Amino acid sequence: MSLVKLYDTTLRDGTQAEDISFLVEDKIRIANRLDEIGIHYIEGGWPGSNPKDVAFFKDIKKEKLSQAKIAAFGSTRRAKITPDKDHNLKTLVQAEPDVCTIFGKTWDFHVREALRISNEENLELIFDSLEYLKTRVPEVFYDAEHFFDGYKANPDYAIKTLKAAQDAKADCIVLCDTNGGTMPFELAEIIREVRKHISAPLGIHTHNDSECAVANSLHAVNEGIVQVQGTINGFGERCGNANLCSIMPALRLKMKAECVSDEQLKKLRDLSRFVYELANLSPDKHQPYVGNSAFAHKGGVHVSAIQRHPETYEHMRPELVGNMTRVLISDLSGRSNILAKAEEFNINMDSKDPVTLEILDNIKEMENRGYQFEGAEASFELLMKRALGTHRKFFSVIGFRVIDEKRHEDQKPFSEATIMVKVGGKVEHTAAEGNGPVNALDNALRKALEKFYPKLKEVKLLDYKVRVLPAGQGTASSIRVLIESGDKEARWGTVGVSENIIDASYQALIDSIEYKLHRAEDAEGVRK
Amino acid sequence: MSLVKLYDTTLRDGTQAEDISFLVEDKIRIANRLDEIGIHYIEGGWPGSNPKDVAFFKDIKKEKLSQAKIAAFGSTRRAKITPDKDHNLKTLVQAEPDVCTIFGKTWDFHVREALRISNEENLELIFDSLEYLKTRVPEVFYDAEHFFDGYKANPDYAIKTLKAAQDAKADCIVLCDTNGGTMPFELAEIIREVRKHISAPLGIHTHNDSECAVANSLHAVNEGIVQVQGTINGFGERCGNANLCSIMPALRLKMKAECVSDEQLKKLRDLSRFVYELANLSPDKHQPYVGNSAFAHKGGVHVSAIQRHPETYEHMRPELVGNMTRVLISDLSGRSNILAKAEEFNINMDSKDPVTLEILDNIKEMENRGYQFEGAEASFELLMKRALGTHRKFFSVIGFRVIDEKRHEDQKPFSEATIMVKVGGKVEHTAAEGNGPVNALDNALRKALEKFYPKLKEVKLLDYKVRVLPAGQGTASSIRVLIESGDKEARWGTVGVSENIIDASYQALIDSIEYKLHRAEDAEGVRK
Repeated sequence: MSLVKLYDTTLRDGTQAEDISFLVEDKIRIANRLDEIGIHYIEGGWPGSNPKDVAFFKDIKKEKLSQAKIAAFGSTRRAKITPDKDHNLKTLVQAEPDVCTIFGKTWDFHVREALRISNEENLELIFDSLEYLKTRVPEVFYDAEHFFDGYKANPDYAIKTLKAAQDAKADCIVLCDTNGGTMPFELAEIIREVRKHISAPLGIHTHNDSECAVANSLHAVNEGIVQVQGTINGFGERCGNANLCSIMPALRLKMKAECVSDEQLKKLRDLSRFVYELANLSPDKHQPYVGNSAFAHKGGVHVSAIQRHPETYEHMRPELVGNMTRVLISDLSGRSNILAKAEEFNINMDSKDPVTLEILDNIKEMENRGYQFEGAEASFELLMKRALGTHRKFFSVIGFRVIDEKRHEDQKPFSEATIMVKVGGKVEHTAAEGNGPVNALDNALRKALEKFYPKLKEVKLLDYKVRVLPAGQGTASSIRVLIESGDKEARWGTVGVSENIIDASYQALIDSIEYKLHRAEDAEGVRK
Repeated sequence: MSLVKLYDTTLRDGTQAEDISFLVEDKIRIANRLDEIGIHYIEGGWPGSNPKDVAFFKDIKKEKLSQAKIAAFGSTRRAKITPDKDHNLKTLVQAEPDVCTIFGKTWDFHVREALRISNEENLELIFDSLEYLKTRVPEVFYDAEHFFDGYKANPDYAIKTLKAAQDAKADCIVLCDTNGGTMPFELAEIIREVRKHISAPLGIHTHNDSECAVANSLHAVNEGIVQVQGTINGFGERCGNANLCSIMPALRLKMKAECVSDEQLKKLRDLSRFVYELANLSPDKHQPYVGNSAFAHKGGVHVSAIQRHPETYEHMRPELVGNMTRVLISDLSGRSNILAKAEEFNINMDSKDPVTLEILDNIKEMENRGYQFEGAEASFELLMKRALGTHRKFFSVIGFRVIDEKRHEDQKPFSEATIMVKVGGKVEHTAAEGNGPVNALDNALRKALEKFYPKLKEVKLLDYKVRVLPAGQGTASSIRVLIESGDKEARWGTVGVSENIIDASYQALIDSIEYKLHRAEDAEGVRK
């Protein structure tokens, strides 16, 4: 079982992403979570480059990390001066990290064009920058920038730069695919060549510009590399860095490498979502291993199979990374999806029951009209209840009116809704305003019903999605509204479709409220 | 230069994604775009599995595709019956596609657990299902489901299933990584083994559950496979299918394979965004090759370097896939964009002119509020005209009121709009109804203005798109409306953003009408 060290650079390379910036507090919180899950090295930033990073290296010392080592990032010294005169190297040492990682040039073209020095001078930069750090920092890593492009352009010189780092006793030499353009089969071959010349431990640092960053990292391990650099969720500039959330489970579960424990791996999904949260980004539902859809099944054939044997359509058990299997409803779904869903909602249903087929036909016909039940499970449950006759009517809407009024050219429109509902024998007639027609209607509806069902006060409208569906022959195009609601315990989605956006929204709002009332009553029933 | 055929399954496997459901109209529009970019095979669906797919195969025959062949998907016959009795195979033939692709079982575990038949019987299923189709359809492909998992479990039997397909003269045998769990280095090795036993042309179909789908597909081509199956943007069940938007440029530019022309490849980014648009998903800005951030560089060293030598920090030229280099937070690049746009609209502008910077700041501020001028060039042109003082005021809206009324539970709401406009000295006060609030407002607005500007009768509202923009801290989420209008000569897009959907739609409608009136008057001027 090969031993692989994980080197996380979410806090440094990850923040190069266009849409990501962390506060020092965020960085400290993330570092603690990275330590918990068993990351061996946490690159905290480039102390030379900005004050935020300096603060991080100061504050992180107060934290009690269980095992992770903190790495500071920088570059080789500038030309024409000695290391002890180089501001960048000095700030690295002053940060007092466990590890220093500096990058240098591999590609002669960069040496000439970017550094504008001779190939020989560049070798000296690499050697004595590392030599300087070795006597001042516990561990020193060397990032060979543009290694693969450099090797393809001038293999001899590329190897020379690695030799310089090896001679300076770098603890690990990291091969970087800086531009992310290297194909997996080239990468494996080049690493084999490198190992003929370099005996020092090797690491890999890839970018995702060809959508091969994860595959390239796994290839590298397969070729004997002992350190993998990447970021949580693949955050990073341009197309991102290698995604550790996909690399960790592959190493542990598929390649049987020694990196993190099975217990730690179970925290992977939580870690992924925690980092999305602090970055203020919504998670990618299709993300491998940790995404909401990663183990979601839609096709009818698949669903019946996974219920008997999950491995038929799952490449691994979702629980191993803290995820779970989900069954979806759609026009592709067969009877088995319906039954699986019914079971989920504790509704007894028999596959031979004609009602099952009735519901199935109903769904297909509705989907043709533009309904969509993925993400609208609550509407689907109500649909089943109606077909099964277990649906209860808590209220009826006698009518409503929504008014949007603009009284002057540069004045924002005013939205108001009036509504009349009937509960039991009682009629309630009321009105409310809102920042738009749907919001006004929602407010009026709740205002009218909360008198009879105070529990509705707990319900919040969390998300509202609108899609205009292309018009069929001669018909006006219809509009689909998806609404996500939630209370203290749960979140549920409902759907409405109509030529009229107010009507579509109204349908989804009614479903949301009916679903809440069914849930509340069922809960009551349980307590009694 | 190896020849590789591209097989797109966006319309079949792509729709298995949790959040994707295309209408028949969408599928036809996408098929036309896939044909344009040079996709060789377009898998349209699974006829018989749902009404949508049957309709697609009927409607697509009316389209004039330049080269793409249409494929229908299905499975091998059921056990214990002859192919001519199998409903699934018959509907495949009835769809009259250019190609039939059927999948069969490779993994003995599936044969036992899912099909519940003997290994021998499964070989017969594969053989005579293909044999049956061969005499009835121009081309027949065989998808070896779970091939790689099956091979790892029982290599001899896995190869036997391929031999059965080869004996039945399948035109291509497609190796499927159905569960997406195969590591790139295993995949390459297994394909080498297969080629020792199978001489028929081979294809590859991978899923992204290990984030290796693209790498695995490229590996397969490197091992001599001649057909690659995938989807646009990697849409697909769970974590998606192999992403053709990343595979096409790699094949063409990095592996020098013959698949699509350089001209066609330049349409890649547009195609990617078109498919996102029809799926009503916002594009992934970090997507390789086609994403907004794929070639975005931060200021400083990187920028000056790429300006002298793009290859220093770009793995390929973005123009080759219709993308472009972006320099982040750089007024200079922003300014040149404005000038380029101005030129497009024949507006003379000087780069030193303060107005240029004013417009730039204006746009940045509006984009922060959620405006987007991609696809709303008419609004952008009016914005420039206002800044330059060349904008003319044709009318002013004194006020409007939109009413949506529902008088009974099962009655559709009635929508009505009243409006008061002023043109020159004259005030017009009128009303109109519509099948929704926006339609009613549009009707009333035109009714009021057509009296003064008869040319408005030519204008048609062609498309209406709504996107709910995520809310910032504490603020209500705002709504962006994109409207496409057109007359005999042209089509133009306008945009509006507000917390209130009626207000957002109103802004876009007003821009559309003002743009038409400017164009009409300019045309008049030309004639005089």
